[in-house]
Amino acid sequence: MHFVKAHGAGNDFVLLPDLDDTLQLTPAFVRRVCRPHLGVGADGVIRIAPPRDDTAADVFMDYRNADGSLAEMCGNGVRCVAKYVADRGLVAGDVVRVDTRGGVKPVEIVARDGGKVSQVRVDMGAPVVGKVDWPLDVDGQTVDVTTLSMGNPHAVTVVEDLDEADLQTIGRALQDHDAFPEGTNVEMITVADRDHVRGRIWERGVGETMASGTGASAMAAAAHLLGLAARQTTVSLPGGDLHVEWTETTLWVTGPAVEVATGELDEAWLQTI
Amino acid sequence: MHFVKAHGAGNDFVLLPDLDDTLQLTPAFVRRVCRPHLGVGADGVIRIAPPRDDTAADVFMDYRNADGSLAEMCGNGVRCVAKYVADRGLVAGDVVRVDTRGGVKPVEIVARDGGKVSQVRVDMGAPVVGKVDWPLDVDGQTVDVTTLSMGNPHAVTVVEDLDEADLQTIGRALQDHDAFPEGTNVEMITVADRDHVRGRIWERGVGETMASGTGASAMAAAAHLLGLAARQTTVSLPGGDLHVEWTETTLWVTGPAVEVATGELDEAWLQTI
Repeated sequence: MHFVKAHGAGNDFVLLPDLDDTLQLTPAFVRRVCRPHLGVGADGVIRIAPPRDDTAADVFMDYRNADGSLAEMCGNGVRCVAKYVADRGLVAGDVVRVDTRGGVKPVEIVARDGGKVSQVRVDMGAPVVGKVDWPLDVDGQTVDVTTLSMGNPHAVTVVEDLDEADLQTIGRALQDHDAFPEGTNVEMITVADRDHVRGRIWERGVGETMASGTGASAMAAAAHLLGLAARQTTVSLPGGDLHVEWTETTLWVTGPAVEVATGELDEAWLQTI
Repeated sequence: MHFVKAHGAGNDFVLLPDLDDTLQLTPAFVRRVCRPHLGVGADGVIRIAPPRDDTAADVFMDYRNADGSLAEMCGNGVRCVAKYVADRGLVAGDVVRVDTRGGVKPVEIVARDGGKVSQVRVDMGAPVVGKVDWPLDVDGQTVDVTTLSMGNPHAVTVVEDLDEADLQTIGRALQDHDAFPEGTNVEMITVADRDHVRGRIWERGVGETMASGTGASAMAAAAHLLGLAARQTTVSLPGGDLHVEWTETTLWVTGPAVEVATGELDEAWLQTI
């Protein structure tokens, strides 16, 4: 089975090109592939599939979290899918329309390096704002969160000391909180400047990750809603920087897409799953 | 650049076949390849090279830790090298002589599955016993260690509760302790039974890992030296079980060798290192 190991700002994926729509992914397979040391190791698996019938898209991003669950959308993943499709000449021009469970995302190639795509801009759609500065009880403490949907749910909280903050505990507790019956991604931010937000991400079903495109979008939007940041801001994540622009009508994220390796999963190993 | 992603009981490697002896590995390259999320992700890189001139071996295992440093020997790595060489018919018979910086290791294929090597027995050489039950001051606490060399240095300590033990703190402190001017690998064990040791490993230059062949050898030998275990014992590590047999003349470790994937590192990505 052919794969590509790719990442966007350190959020990494095993891409499985499946334009013939023949692969049947099971949760056990996804967990095994994503597991560090014993598998390939990644934050998720993305099957690159034909667009679904009711969409005017070029390709469908069938995204699975490392725990085997389905995801609506992944901003870093969609950049890697666009790079895969554009680098191999599967679409003409500089726009790739990627169908996701969170809707069709137009993706724009904004920079190439040596003929290969390096920077990609994603129209993430306008955030659907939930509650701003909402106090929630988390194990007896009050945590103020701002909730938004970017196709998937986010709860953003401002912290004093980002490096010392206990994302492991708070992230898990908010993910499983009664306020979020379908779970939520969790972001912690500090605002260095009106055009510079720093953040960390707890990805629902995964744990702490180095970057998330929808997470960066939610961070920038929440910082703006709280009056702390401008509509255009750089979001610095452990895996790298993303640039977010929230316009009147939508929200754009620009960032890197990197391919590290291509290969074949071992047939004998696949049979042990 | 061609690679194989392999593991032995969850101790994982990027194998770089280089039988023409043309690759020049730099520490920066090794660190980048081994880094999770941003690279391939592994505990180490193994260049599979021609045997050095002064050895009667089939192949040389040029092992690098994830931090870019050189290592003398890696028991799980040597099994993966033997599987690579045997599965591709590069040696005849069921014994592969693997040259390492810790000496030449005869490696025996003991089981195949579907024609591919599955279980491998490694003659690790007799442990060179250092100090048994040696009390060391570690940040004001006394930690009793048993030291051995298996080509590389080990310090083994018996703990009450293996799962709760603070290997992060103790491992790092012992690795950097004045008693070990060249550093040391650190193992924590509990002895369930005379033929069953459970353990965790702090690999020098890497941190906690799922398994280590020299670590398992040191654990079993230390448990025997302390009167807690027989000469034959199963060592259960987070990544799987290894079987250790300490005879009058040498020490054998039997365990799995697994290939997960084969592939090519991306040329554009390599140029960013």
